[in-house]
Amino acid sequence: MSQSPKLISESRCFEGTIAFYSHHSTACNSPIKFAVYQPPQAAFAPVPVLYFLSGLTCSEENFMVKSGAQRFAAQYGLMLVAPDTSPRNTGTLGEDDDWDFGTGAGFYVDAIAAPWKAHYQMYSYVTQELPDLIEQNFPVLPDKRGIFGHSMGGHGALVAALRNPDRYQSVSAFSPIVTPIQSPWGQKAFTRYLGTDQTDWQMYDASELVRVGGSDRLILIDQGTSDSFLNTQLFPQAFEKICAEVGQPLTLRMQTGYDHSYYFIATFIEDHIHHHAKILCL
Amino acid sequence: MSQSPKLISESRCFEGTIAFYSHHSTACNSPIKFAVYQPPQAAFAPVPVLYFLSGLTCSEENFMVKSGAQRFAAQYGLMLVAPDTSPRNTGTLGEDDDWDFGTGAGFYVDAIAAPWKAHYQMYSYVTQELPDLIEQNFPVLPDKRGIFGHSMGGHGALVAALRNPDRYQSVSAFSPIVTPIQSPWGQKAFTRYLGTDQTDWQMYDASELVRVGGSDRLILIDQGTSDSFLNTQLFPQAFEKICAEVGQPLTLRMQTGYDHSYYFIATFIEDHIHHHAKILCL
Repeated sequence: MSQSPKLISESRCFEGTIAFYSHHSTACNSPIKFAVYQPPQAAFAPVPVLYFLSGLTCSEENFMVKSGAQRFAAQYGLMLVAPDTSPRNTGTLGEDDDWDFGTGAGFYVDAIAAPWKAHYQMYSYVTQELPDLIEQNFPVLPDKRGIFGHSMGGHGALVAALRNPDRYQSVSAFSPIVTPIQSPWGQKAFTRYLGTDQTDWQMYDASELVRVGGSDRLILIDQGTSDSFLNTQLFPQAFEKICAEVGQPLTLRMQTGYDHSYYFIATFIEDHIHHHAKILCL
Repeated sequence: MSQSPKLISESRCFEGTIAFYSHHSTACNSPIKFAVYQPPQAAFAPVPVLYFLSGLTCSEENFMVKSGAQRFAAQYGLMLVAPDTSPRNTGTLGEDDDWDFGTGAGFYVDAIAAPWKAHYQMYSYVTQELPDLIEQNFPVLPDKRGIFGHSMGGHGALVAALRNPDRYQSVSAFSPIVTPIQSPWGQKAFTRYLGTDQTDWQMYDASELVRVGGSDRLILIDQGTSDSFLNTQLFPQAFEKICAEVGQPLTLRMQTGYDHSYYFIATFIEDHIHHHAKILCL
């Protein structure tokens, strides 16, 4: 059982409350921080909850500071939860050497290779420990969960939703890494976290998961056409092709001129919150 | 004449463009950065322009990253311009010693005391040089200018508007320092930038400016009641009293539970943009 979350700071925001917490994660055997936005409706009754997974180098703060999501979470009555992207200061040798691996780059996998397996258990953390903690400590409806994310976090959200269709009723992503097996970022991270046996990688690759079954949830993806990572790391059109082949419901929107930044996310956050609210707030 | 602005970066945002620039300021004899959001309407015809002045420690980035203003600027067709809060790296002895003075804390005054007078000319910069530069380089209507700001920048916006009612048709502020003469932040900054003769301070004090005349522009101010600086630095109720005495139009809204952060600004940014748009977009 997780330690109760310790409040770090809170601010009023759109008649609700944005707050930052730390707790000891049993999955990661490490302190982890997360952010919670409670909409005004949560003061009166339990509400659905929407998890956001951030991208490389991000913390629990970026999404809450930059996306503007609270405006629409307050309209629809959705709780927002955004965890950090990795454990930090675990003492693992090399954890701070690279911007795209280790600290700030947990890739939402459960590491099985030493030395990372001692702390880097972010898949279990975001799909099990954190939801359990939220459901024990905040006024949320236990069976109304959505998940979305950006870039590395878009990968994490797709994998979490595809592997747990009963756990997440709604899913979307901004500029996700849809096939980390084919992406240099993913190859680097998976080799170190999971080892060189690529059969261990497939359960963390959204394209492979769709190929072997997928889910009946409609996936919404927004992708900027001026994103500098589009043709080197992200490959959403390849994912669209696989989804079409197997009948996985997908709406892929190529947004002309937009890049990989939070200015892109802020522009389309309303559509994503609406996508989740249609399903979760019925 | 100012050097043309040099583009640092740009991103598509709400069908317009957010971009960051640097140029050599003649007023400050130093490079200064600023941000410009061009709404989609600016691609077709000149638009009104709304200047935002940020608070202590901020740069040209904070407002554009955190406020969510672009959503509404795009709706109304307003250009947004946000300059840095001071010159930087001028070589002035002590400029980086304090978080509330020097770098990141120009207080929007023209310094007259050595050594600050050589570079810290932010009043002239924001009221003259920057608007001239914007009007020469961007598609804006020359006689449709508004100004607003936060905290130290709220002070700057009020002073700029009260001293130049013909230059700014609209004005508002979040949590402004309405009487820097009475505020420890203002006393520290004015003593060093302007010297100890307090008669030189009055033209930079919104309360004093209202007392000797004010303007017929309606001032909108939002202030959080849980702002930790409310009763030590800000004193909006004293400003309300002076405005009432002299007939200065003012709407002061005390927002229950809100603090001094950008979560507060994001919550009420729509109202502020609407306040300016009503006047500038007629």
